[in-house]
Amino acid sequence: MSLQETMLQAIEEELQHQVSRLDQPRTKQFHEMLTYHMGWAGEGSGPEAAGKRIRPLLVLLTTSSLYEETKSNNTNRNNWLHAKSAAAAIELIHNFSLVHDDIQDNSDKRRGRKTVWVKWGQPMAINVGDALFVIANQSVLDLAKHYPADVVVKAASILNNCCLDLTCGQFLDMSYEERKDLSIEDYWPMIGGKTSALLSACTHIGALLGNAGEAAQEAYRQFGYHLGLAFQVQDDILGIWGDESITGKSAASDLVEGKNSLPVLYALGKNGKFAERWQQGPITASEVGRAASQLESEGARKYAEDVSEKETQKALSYLEDANPQGEAGESILKLANMLLKRKQ
Amino acid sequence: MSLQETMLQAIEEELQHQVSRLDQPRTKQFHEMLTYHMGWAGEGSGPEAAGKRIRPLLVLLTTSSLYEETKSNNTNRNNWLHAKSAAAAIELIHNFSLVHDDIQDNSDKRRGRKTVWVKWGQPMAINVGDALFVIANQSVLDLAKHYPADVVVKAASILNNCCLDLTCGQFLDMSYEERKDLSIEDYWPMIGGKTSALLSACTHIGALLGNAGEAAQEAYRQFGYHLGLAFQVQDDILGIWGDESITGKSAASDLVEGKNSLPVLYALGKNGKFAERWQQGPITASEVGRAASQLESEGARKYAEDVSEKETQKALSYLEDANPQGEAGESILKLANMLLKRKQ
Repeated sequence: MSLQETMLQAIEEELQHQVSRLDQPRTKQFHEMLTYHMGWAGEGSGPEAAGKRIRPLLVLLTTSSLYEETKSNNTNRNNWLHAKSAAAAIELIHNFSLVHDDIQDNSDKRRGRKTVWVKWGQPMAINVGDALFVIANQSVLDLAKHYPADVVVKAASILNNCCLDLTCGQFLDMSYEERKDLSIEDYWPMIGGKTSALLSACTHIGALLGNAGEAAQEAYRQFGYHLGLAFQVQDDILGIWGDESITGKSAASDLVEGKNSLPVLYALGKNGKFAERWQQGPITASEVGRAASQLESEGARKYAEDVSEKETQKALSYLEDANPQGEAGESILKLANMLLKRKQ
Repeated sequence: MSLQETMLQAIEEELQHQVSRLDQPRTKQFHEMLTYHMGWAGEGSGPEAAGKRIRPLLVLLTTSSLYEETKSNNTNRNNWLHAKSAAAAIELIHNFSLVHDDIQDNSDKRRGRKTVWVKWGQPMAINVGDALFVIANQSVLDLAKHYPADVVVKAASILNNCCLDLTCGQFLDMSYEERKDLSIEDYWPMIGGKTSALLSACTHIGALLGNAGEAAQEAYRQFGYHLGLAFQVQDDILGIWGDESITGKSAASDLVEGKNSLPVLYALGKNGKFAERWQQGPITASEVGRAASQLESEGARKYAEDVSEKETQKALSYLEDANPQGEAGESILKLANMLLKRKQ
């Protein structure tokens, strides 16, 4: 097995171990709700339903990529094993936000399966999200089994600071739904909270647990942050101009859903024909091709592609500063390229 | 000012300080949602809207009551000042659960004011609860400014273990709504999670931060736990047989609301006339007097009063073991008696 495969297996076991806190006689059904959402149980369960576990993988690869630098400190090659519960914490935070997002967005499907609120109702789903959040905190505190308490406090602080950013990003996203006066300046704080905060927490915590110095921690943190921005902008572009067979969802659906993506906010700032149409109300499925062309002719696609490229370069430059080592280092670069849909 | 008044003022300042993390240019309205819920802003704000802050007070009184025991360690008389952020954490957890409860129960009023979800909608209210939870975690981690990291990790662990109990209690409460086969045995795990877990976390964390030994920590923890049980049973009794002028809500409303309180579960276990009527569907306002009398004639009131008295005695016995000192110690006893509606 490759290092990455070994890690993915360890992540899944650790997640199941952490969630099993609810596997008690009186709370079997509650436990079932979480195992369903995590993709382990119920109709349609399996790897597809679980998702790619990219975030926890990024934590462990980061920790492991610091091996060469710290081998003089007697850190062994499997130093990432001790970081498992922090990796689980990040994935649980991600899933807590998905469960609550699905209620907030009224989404009835998640990775092709019914969402938790559709299966068990909104009140239960709110509680499922809350439990995932609590268990995330318990998981990060479990680091105390292997790390000095001050490292645990720092990891827990990074995690919760990131969570506050998540709630702020979510607030902005929801509050934008009613606004007609948005422009690009409104994009970054929303995406910074919704996407980049968690990815930067992955690499920051991973570096901390790999015993990186302050400068290396900062380089890894910035790498994660800009990776998140580049990934999100890339996703925004694919959401409008992507080939359906690539994205796995109806191309241009972001326009129908009224999503305040970067290309849209760029065009709103231009106040041209697209902005005029957008402000009149929802774009229908039959208009989607025309709207996407209009958006492109106003320079929105080019702008977003330039931004994505710039953020990608920033991310890769910080990764170079971080100088990840060994097989883990190679895997991080591959993972970043995969996220950014780039050829190696 | 009495010690208690000084503490209440410090608690309010600390809570405002913690919540001000959201007071940023782009998240003013988000911040406003939290300050509204906390009772500081918006229509109907003021001490009534804020609630009594009993839980954080219990944290600080516990810490302070350990002064005499630890003065040989150079702990000063204001040792509780350093525990402020943990007290705030507990109150924020309490309020996070209230905001989500109000959505789950479809309640439109909280302390006489519109609930957050009524004012800003359910999606925003879910996010407000999430933010209160995050800030609670950030608050408890703020202890690192004054305490060794291992104490901070322990306090954060107690807090999050208690939160998992809260979500389990909430799960049980919601799952009971559909069940017709409940009995007393189903009561304790629900109430243990919904009410006692948080009160025991107050006294446990307070004792930890007052530098109590293991035995004293356990005595304080048990005191808080049984105080919670006694308080909840007392509340259940008042919810059915209480004088409206005392409880501040329509007497017997718990029967109309279909609440699975201890007297009701006792009677369901007896399977008599009350159980038969209960299982036929909601009790109407006009039936309430008759239903309460029936419940009393089947021994449910006497049973609940005996349980409340037994739990009260247990709580007070653990408090005696804990042996709280000074003005803080006296205040804890007064607070317990006030919660249990007992004369001093």
